[in-house]
Amino acid sequence: MLTVHLENGTVTTLDRPLPHRPAGFALLRLLLAGICNTDLELRRGYYGFSGTPGHEFVAEVIEADAAGLVGRRVVGDINLGCGHCEWCRKGWSRHCPNRTVLGIVKQPGAFAEFFVLPERNLHVLPDGLSADRAVFTEPLAAACEILDQVAIPPCEPVAVLGDGKLGLLVALVLNAHGYPVDQYGRHAEKLKIAASAGVRVQANPDRLPAAAYDWVVEATGSADGLRQAVSMTRPRGTVIMKSTVHGTVEMDAAPVIVNELTLVGSRCGRFESALPLLDHKLIPVESLIAGRFELRDAARAFDRAAERGVLKVLLTL
Amino acid sequence: MLTVHLENGTVTTLDRPLPHRPAGFALLRLLLAGICNTDLELRRGYYGFSGTPGHEFVAEVIEADAAGLVGRRVVGDINLGCGHCEWCRKGWSRHCPNRTVLGIVKQPGAFAEFFVLPERNLHVLPDGLSADRAVFTEPLAAACEILDQVAIPPCEPVAVLGDGKLGLLVALVLNAHGYPVDQYGRHAEKLKIAASAGVRVQANPDRLPAAAYDWVVEATGSADGLRQAVSMTRPRGTVIMKSTVHGTVEMDAAPVIVNELTLVGSRCGRFESALPLLDHKLIPVESLIAGRFELRDAARAFDRAAERGVLKVLLTL
Repeated sequence: MLTVHLENGTVTTLDRPLPHRPAGFALLRLLLAGICNTDLELRRGYYGFSGTPGHEFVAEVIEADAAGLVGRRVVGDINLGCGHCEWCRKGWSRHCPNRTVLGIVKQPGAFAEFFVLPERNLHVLPDGLSADRAVFTEPLAAACEILDQVAIPPCEPVAVLGDGKLGLLVALVLNAHGYPVDQYGRHAEKLKIAASAGVRVQANPDRLPAAAYDWVVEATGSADGLRQAVSMTRPRGTVIMKSTVHGTVEMDAAPVIVNELTLVGSRCGRFESALPLLDHKLIPVESLIAGRFELRDAARAFDRAAERGVLKVLLTL
Repeated sequence: MLTVHLENGTVTTLDRPLPHRPAGFALLRLLLAGICNTDLELRRGYYGFSGTPGHEFVAEVIEADAAGLVGRRVVGDINLGCGHCEWCRKGWSRHCPNRTVLGIVKQPGAFAEFFVLPERNLHVLPDGLSADRAVFTEPLAAACEILDQVAIPPCEPVAVLGDGKLGLLVALVLNAHGYPVDQYGRHAEKLKIAASAGVRVQANPDRLPAAAYDWVVEATGSADGLRQAVSMTRPRGTVIMKSTVHGTVEMDAAPVIVNELTLVGSRCGRFESALPLLDHKLIPVESLIAGRFELRDAARAFDRAAERGVLKVLLTL
């Protein structure tokens, strides 16, 4: 079978045998995959990754212990918990200390013709939900995670900093939940996607408003984003940290303490929150699709995804 | 009248005229004051401070619009809000953007024979509450502030990092509220104060436990404290940031985001929370008293307070 291989910063394709299907796992055949910023970071050498990347996918179940799954289209939670620890027992395998992560940590990923994932990780797609929309389940769940973590009162204005894929999905999710959203970014073209859904957008403002919001989402992906978010937040307000930034960030602790801000780190979310938003077409995710490549052209697809201003690049068989 | 003067890092005493008492203000005569780390930072030149420092005090009311106040012993909230903004109207003058702060920001402080403060800032002391205990109201309120900000479930273990004055008061407050507290510090002598009240203490542990607590209070006063606190916190746990650290701190954002931690900046608190703890002798604050100087010896008192390992130094007339 065809599989993408990433090693020492280079993306290639290889022909590999079908993966072994352990008990409780489903054998999946890829229908559609998405390239995430994390995949680009893996290529840059973070985590010392070597193997098959890919964690945003729609697939068809080829083999499974549960006969009802076979032939169904599925998406799947990317965290593989041990199933036994207190986190897994609470349903929080995303925080299992022994977890592996599809295409990221010790679990071959979805950029392959076939791959395996525990059946308990899978979510069967409704018939009317297209693969083009469903492939956004994982990143949309990460955007939805915010509302699982903090209780933003209804109608409270929220500022979203950053207009990359995650920033757009966050703005669109909050907008779909009825919050007035002000999004600040650097790319007028990208911001149009949010604006067309009703988000108030500002491209390259001369300066960001100071102490103006009780709720600020930092999704810039840059080391300076946290400082900006802190300065935009009113006393006793909350900054949700969505950017994965590598290395240390410089933070001025004084305004956080003097203004008694709350900073909330936020990562993966529950697919259950994202799927209804996709199924009911509440988020125009298709607007984020910037390109489509065959799996054997994965190297070119990665190059394209890494270009400035490019949003979601998809991979097909 | 005798007043302490701080300018260009030097503490002197001066003879000054009695302060003017504006309408709504009380004229206070100092009974007892405490030197805080913030006072030592003012001496080091932070905030470009010049004037009379001092914000921890017990005083007698000499003149006031409210006749019932005259002759009473009082403590007082150090933040002077404008009284009109949304923060002041909510009772949060601590966050008034136009506030002055006694002995810190544009309001002559309490290290003086006489000083003034708005009557609405004052809290009359119960007869049985000694000045030696009441002088801890302000720092104890700052420790109590944590429980106004976060709802720690009953019986949840809490780690306190740091054994300075604030770290000790935080550990003692949490302990008095029934939480099992583990305090980590560098001074066995100081930690004994917390241990005698039932706090489990560890002086200079070889290494701090990793991902061990859902609740961690960072009160080290050092730039490295936040990193340590983050590493001690379990996924989805909370770090309360009590240290005022000047300049930027280096923070590794990755564990905050991956483990979805919450960081809560925490500053001043409500005197209403601290006074009952003092009045009912639930906190052995007297154990923190390390010295007592007359106001005219303020320079020596500051030197003493700045010595390593010294806790609360008091000033009297």
